[in-house]
Amino acid sequence: MASTTAIVNGVLIDATGAAPVDNAVIVIVDDTITAAGPAADITVPADATIIDAAGKWIIPGLMDANVHLVSARTPDTILEFEGRYDELVREAAEIALKYGLTTIFDTWGPAGPTAAIRDRINAGELVGSRIYMAGNILGLGGPLADDFFPIGSILEPATMARINAIWEEGTGTHLAYLTPAEVKEVVRDYIQRTRPDFIKYAATDHVATGYLMLSEESQRAIVEAAHEAGLTVQAHTTTVESLRIEVELGADLLQHPDATIGRLIPDDLLDTIVQNQIPCAALVRTKEHEDWLIEQSGGAIDAMMNNLIQNDNALIAKGARVLLTTDGFAYGQRVKNHPGFRPGIRDNVPDMPTQIGISHFFWIRGAVQRGLDPMEALRSATSYIAEAYQVDDQIGTLVPGKKADLLILTADPLADPRNYQHIDTVMKDGAVIDREALGQNLLLADDPGL
Amino acid sequence: MASTTAIVNGVLIDATGAAPVDNAVIVIVDDTITAAGPAADITVPADATIIDAAGKWIIPGLMDANVHLVSARTPDTILEFEGRYDELVREAAEIALKYGLTTIFDTWGPAGPTAAIRDRINAGELVGSRIYMAGNILGLGGPLADDFFPIGSILEPATMARINAIWEEGTGTHLAYLTPAEVKEVVRDYIQRTRPDFIKYAATDHVATGYLMLSEESQRAIVEAAHEAGLTVQAHTTTVESLRIEVELGADLLQHPDATIGRLIPDDLLDTIVQNQIPCAALVRTKEHEDWLIEQSGGAIDAMMNNLIQNDNALIAKGARVLLTTDGFAYGQRVKNHPGFRPGIRDNVPDMPTQIGISHFFWIRGAVQRGLDPMEALRSATSYIAEAYQVDDQIGTLVPGKKADLLILTADPLADPRNYQHIDTVMKDGAVIDREALGQNLLLADDPGL
Amino acid sequence: MASTTAIVNGVLIDATGAAPVDNAVIVIVDDTITAAGPAADITVPADATIIDAAGKWIIPGLMDANVHLVSARTPDTILEFEGRYDELVREAAEIALKYGLTTIFDTWGPAGPTAAIRDRINAGELVGSRIYMAGNILGLGGPLADDFFPIGSILEPATMARINAIWEEGTGTHLAYLTPAEVKEVVRDYIQRTRPDFIKYAATDHVATGYLMLSEESQRAIVEAAHEAGLTVQAHTTTVESLRIEVELGADLLQHPDATIGRLIPDDLLDTIVQNQIPCAALVRTKEHEDWLIEQSGGAIDAMMNNLIQNDNALIAKGARVLLTTDGFAYGQRVKNHPGFRPGIRDNVPDMPTQIGISHFFWIRGAVQRGLDPMEALRSATSYIAEAYQVDDQIGTLVPGKKADLLILTADPLADPRNYQHIDTVMKDGAVIDREALGQNLLLADDPGL
Amino acid sequence: MASTTAIVNGVLIDATGAAPVDNAVIVIVDDTITAAGPAADITVPADATIIDAAGKWIIPGLMDANVHLVSARTPDTILEFEGRYDELVREAAEIALKYGLTTIFDTWGPAGPTAAIRDRINAGELVGSRIYMAGNILGLGGPLADDFFPIGSILEPATMARINAIWEEGTGTHLAYLTPAEVKEVVRDYIQRTRPDFIKYAATDHVATGYLMLSEESQRAIVEAAHEAGLTVQAHTTTVESLRIEVELGADLLQHPDATIGRLIPDDLLDTIVQNQIPCAALVRTKEHEDWLIEQSGGAIDAMMNNLIQNDNALIAKGARVLLTTDGFAYGQRVKNHPGFRPGIRDNVPDMPTQIGISHFFWIRGAVQRGLDPMEALRSATSYIAEAYQVDDQIGTLVPGKKADLLILTADPLADPRNYQHIDTVMKDGAVIDREALGQNLLLADDPGL
Repeated sequence: MASTTAIVNGVLIDATGAAPVDNAVIVIVDDTITAAGPAADITVPADATIIDAAGKWIIPGLMDANVHLVSARTPDTILEFEGRYDELVREAAEIALKYGLTTIFDTWGPAGPTAAIRDRINAGELVGSRIYMAGNILGLGGPLADDFFPIGSILEPATMARINAIWEEGTGTHLAYLTPAEVKEVVRDYIQRTRPDFIKYAATDHVATGYLMLSEESQRAIVEAAHEAGLTVQAHTTTVESLRIEVELGADLLQHPDATIGRLIPDDLLDTIVQNQIPCAALVRTKEHEDWLIEQSGGAIDAMMNNLIQNDNALIAKGARVLLTTDGFAYGQRVKNHPGFRPGIRDNVPDMPTQIGISHFFWIRGAVQRGLDPMEALRSATSYIAEAYQVDDQIGTLVPGKKADLLILTADPLADPRNYQHIDTVMKDGAVIDREALGQNLLLADDPGL
Repeated sequence: MASTTAIVNGVLIDATGAAPVDNAVIVIVDDTITAAGPAADITVPADATIIDAAGKWIIPGLMDANVHLVSARTPDTILEFEGRYDELVREAAEIALKYGLTTIFDTWGPAGPTAAIRDRINAGELVGSRIYMAGNILGLGGPLADDFFPIGSILEPATMARINAIWEEGTGTHLAYLTPAEVKEVVRDYIQRTRPDFIKYAATDHVATGYLMLSEESQRAIVEAAHEAGLTVQAHTTTVESLRIEVELGADLLQHPDATIGRLIPDDLLDTIVQNQIPCAALVRTKEHEDWLIEQSGGAIDAMMNNLIQNDNALIAKGARVLLTTDGFAYGQRVKNHPGFRPGIRDNVPDMPTQIGISHFFWIRGAVQRGLDPMEALRSATSYIAEAYQVDDQIGTLVPGKKADLLILTADPLADPRNYQHIDTVMKDGAVIDREALGQNLLLADDPGL
Repeated sequence: MASTTAIVNGVLIDATGAAPVDNAVIVIVDDTITAAGPAADITVPADATIIDAAGKWIIPGLMDANVHLVSARTPDTILEFEGRYDELVREAAEIALKYGLTTIFDTWGPAGPTAAIRDRINAGELVGSRIYMAGNILGLGGPLADDFFPIGSILEPATMARINAIWEEGTGTHLAYLTPAEVKEVVRDYIQRTRPDFIKYAATDHVATGYLMLSEESQRAIVEAAHEAGLTVQAHTTTVESLRIEVELGADLLQHPDATIGRLIPDDLLDTIVQNQIPCAALVRTKEHEDWLIEQSGGAIDAMMNNLIQNDNALIAKGARVLLTTDGFAYGQRVKNHPGFRPGIRDNVPDMPTQIGISHFFWIRGAVQRGLDPMEALRSATSYIAEAYQVDDQIGTLVPGKKADLLILTADPLADPRNYQHIDTVMKDGAVIDREALGQNLLLADDPGL
Repeated sequence: MASTTAIVNGVLIDATGAAPVDNAVIVIVDDTITAAGPAADITVPADATIIDAAGKWIIPGLMDANVHLVSARTPDTILEFEGRYDELVREAAEIALKYGLTTIFDTWGPAGPTAAIRDRINAGELVGSRIYMAGNILGLGGPLADDFFPIGSILEPATMARINAIWEEGTGTHLAYLTPAEVKEVVRDYIQRTRPDFIKYAATDHVATGYLMLSEESQRAIVEAAHEAGLTVQAHTTTVESLRIEVELGADLLQHPDATIGRLIPDDLLDTIVQNQIPCAALVRTKEHEDWLIEQSGGAIDAMMNNLIQNDNALIAKGARVLLTTDGFAYGQRVKNHPGFRPGIRDNVPDMPTQIGISHFFWIRGAVQRGLDPMEALRSATSYIAEAYQVDDQIGTLVPGKKADLLILTADPLADPRNYQHIDTVMKDGAVIDREALGQNLLLADDPGL
């Protein structure tokens, strides 16, 4: 028998762009919204469980267009948790949900363990964020490859190959050595075997050089293979030339287009992106974080980071369709303190932009600081992401027919972006989440708190 | 008043593909051949200086389609010879000429010092091989950049930048960050300023990854800029995909197409290359060198070297237009013994394939060992190179109207490729070269001897 | 009830220095020899199990004065086998016994796991070589410390510290920072806690510099603490000055005194060592191995290895008391092929000098090649080691009262040192060893075969 | 004819420990003080040039017990200035004198170039600080050796050896491989050839390990050779054990005894040092610098630096004889910004403790902050150094018979240590120095200013 819930008396912001509705009613049957609007227009079913949201705001559950759920990135933890990466996916998904992310998009991770947790959450066996995943970034190696962590002669090649294969699933750096036709076959096979929800490929490499991993024709082969399978596609790009190619090939979503080595996005390319409203998952930082970067650097902020910030400012100023994206991991002390890990991930970094569970709040504040309209910021964190990933038939807005993924906040998020942190209730699939039960028994990640 | 020379009584092999001519006469006025053919058909001018080639063979001067004249590749020597790189160009050009290379094509070097020596040789002020040069490989850094010699934190960035700029001339790795239109402007400017004889660009990087330095559109921009200026163009490629792009863009010459990471040249691409007789400057090794590589490796020869050898075998078997190319330097002990220099350059390497002054002989022998017809091998070392570089109106064959660049050998080169080393006389621009005077007072290079 | 065995009809070489005894009888009751000598002098007990050694030779079980039983030396295997090092000790002890080493002296290893296997073998629970052990080399770090394998920033410091502590047991490199009195306390505590059979300390460091880890006074403190506890003491030394100090401090055994950086052992020091017959555990190589070293190096053999060989020649020529020592590990393919492991350990090295199970045969042959009398060589491999380690009341010779540790060979070891490999029977503690049962289910080590 | 100068009306602080003398007169004939005391006691010669010091203070010229005059420490500058190191010595000596250091003790540098400038300054040919020098630290390598700058495989061994030899002069790391008798011979030869003013040897190494470079007997040999030649001797020590040995061997001066790896100086050793008033050249930092170190480190200040500071506090509290010492170089931007140079030398470091020309002021302030009596601080910077180096018959106090090396300050140095920077006049050898003329045309060093 169906269960029915009604959220009453609150302010509804449904992320369709419609104005907030005071004294709203949302009716939910099982996991789906059946009605949402002014109390005057909606009859609350007699058998409904009532949630009184008086003095509160109801928004769709937040989303992050770019996370990496397996936090083990360093040799120690990767070796230690071999065979148990699914447990790390699970803890990251718990932390994400605890802090209001009802949906997350994993853009690089081991497909097998990630899919296992995705499916168990979807089946209701586990509680965590709704996961969509890409598996590997096609063309890149695994976490012990030079793309991510140069090991030198410390470990056996066989050890590194065994681990990397869990991420690569046959789509590693050797794609650079294949013909476009061969690349297409590899991708088709990858999709069949690993069941990704979307495809991400490496247009440029993952180290600082900005060289192209894959030729334009090979990239085209990937885009075609993805679209054939009904999957959206995005690319890792770090130069304006790789970004131009990605746009021309028809990528559905631009992942960190703001990261451009050596120069800013040219105006004509920027205009194309804006005019076509191509979704831009931009790594927006808060002003406070930007100030800290400048201070740390003694004035000479890292050139690529400076480009990123200026590109973000331009994208927002020109009216690009931006999406909340953090490139976040579920950090813990072992990763933070690892001597070989990338610098900049330390305690006391103001508004750390890449930590699952907290950085999505900073993204919204940073975007508003840089001029994004508050209502647009809300949609960038919800409905626009769902549209970009083509799952807006299911989630992203609070309208009838959508999954009841929502947050109840105790303060108005449009009045001040800090109010997103004032979470009263997280609901996913129509069920109120017991947030305190999430993030217990953490293996590697820290609970970021609020 | 013109000087006239006649070479008489020898066997003429003119590299046009015509059969050898016994009892031939070649008449040379100043630097140009005015007649060449059977003695019966040619009148020897009365005032001619006679060179009696009885029992000898006359062939065009040999060429190498790929050398690097500045032997200073290591930090010590680069710093020590700063300001004097022209002297190193000069000594390499002397050694090359001493051993029969009348023309060499420098495919990566500092444009300024190389052009200075090129021009002084052409003006008759210095004696050395005829030089054609590309200057930088567009898109790559200089010799102290990570492309060639990773320095880490040993030297000041300013020191490295100062040196690298002498090679880069504004065309370094930052090309990867520009738009195709911007790349084209950089190349036009480079051509105007440095006066290269041909253009070489980096389709793939110079380290082991095989990633693309430049997008297809940026490569096209370079090809167009080169052709606009009337220059031939070639690329540094290391993958089958970069090779395919190079072919499609209409490169005039394929530089080491045999170097393909991760797999052999696909058959369809090979067929295209062969059918269109696109010149292939292939790094052919002798069988003796191949055997040594295998033995040194304990059976597991380096994968890329194995591909190279197999590709060479296939190119020759299929009838590709191959060119003699060595990628040679004028090695000396300091470079050979430098602990940071690439392995494999040591004394006692059999048939060292990359040493200016000696390796061209090994190339010819290796090519014949792998099935190249002896007459074709001769043309691969002479007329075919001239055609590929579009200087065949000047050099490459021993026919009237061409520069009198030729060798007189004491043994038949078509009978045994080892006979190319039996040099009796080197003539360039109509003048007999005093070979003993070459390669004295060497700064860095060794005279390889014979 | 006691079991009695008699070995009859063979040639007895008892390693006391006495001449071989033809037609000998050895009577063994339980684990102890009760009679040994000419058949004419000995009555074979009626209930004795008879072993007929007609046409064979009986010698004491061989010994190695320096092995390292835990073969996991590389980060991969160390991490993988954490908690199971005892299993590696066991497999090495099995391989050693299989090839005739009835007693081995572990001079660097994790005390806990090594003692565990030592004790289980002594208790008869496991079959393997009799083990005496030092645990850590006092003053050195564990296997992931810079002394043995510089890791850089690849692993977490906590990971390395956790592993290293298993070896160090509180006696690591910090000893260099203590006063002599403090050092003595550390050593006393170490002896009490870990129950080593002898003490080894680092007079010089374990990298190439040859600097002193410990001052003369700190070394003296260690020698005193060892002697107080009734333990013999030896040092890791690599210079003639550290060797001189070790001699002056009264070390009981000189471990690889032949390893002297920068110069040979001075004559006066050599004379002192010889005149006092201080036991020298010398790393003697065969001539075949020496020739290979020279050939590999292109003539310029590593200077320290050259010193070692010359020192060995001098020690033997002067009549020093030398002991069989290999510094051996139970190598397997993973260690051999590890890219970060010390070079020189590869398949096809002739007479590999450092592999448990095979290298002790090479030692004996090398020593004889360098002039050691065959009977002295046998004693160097047996009774002299027992004397040096002060366990000659138990083992080392085949005389009444000693443990029945012996080999029966099918060829005369004094006639040709290669005959030591002709093992018919291995007996330890009076029991015939089932050699085929040893070295099954190997984890990391290879069975070297014969 | 002698020149006579009289400084009148000032406050004389003669560094003998006597109370300041108001209204003092100092009479100087040529380079020597002939009278100094209350105006009432001294007749000013009629022909004297008068310097009116009314309202000013006169103190002996300052000294630094530990500097390194050749600032080229990085491969770039070392190679660039090869053959011209004397020019670098000269510029450092100019900067030192400009800021009141009339005498400096160079404890590691190239003996040849340093002696050349020392002698030219002493001969009056150049103007600069009075130099006493040790040349090499016996047992250590030159600036391109691993002791100072690990180069890896970037430079040729021959290049490094050529440079290092200029510093080593036959006394490099190979001393560790010699016998004590051989070491003594090397040192005797070194003294004869290079004419050092004092001897410094490496008791411990120069990297972080704290291992002993030289055995106690080899150290004794050095001390004896130095004393035989009438030279004072000091050691580079970094552990409490090497410090204990140095004290027992009778070193004349302890160079940075405060640097003790792993633990503080034990109380009994500290007491011995204090009771015997063995001069301690201690690397005292200001409190402001200490605070910055703590802040930079996030609270976990480098352990060795923490020991150093605590040792300094204890030395001063216990009444040890401390000497001003900075370990200073004449820094310039190229060294500061070199990516391979030791961290911590950057602009904006408060009270940079190791820069010639400025850090001696910080030393005095830091010592007073840590409790040193102001008068003692003055003597630590003057007479105590002269005594320790046994040149107090010439310099160090302002009493008749001594060289007229002095400073006239416009503020009372005993009232506030910052007043040492208020330099009105620098006099050396009786001559007023034209400070503006010093430090012009600097090659590598910066003029620190005040």
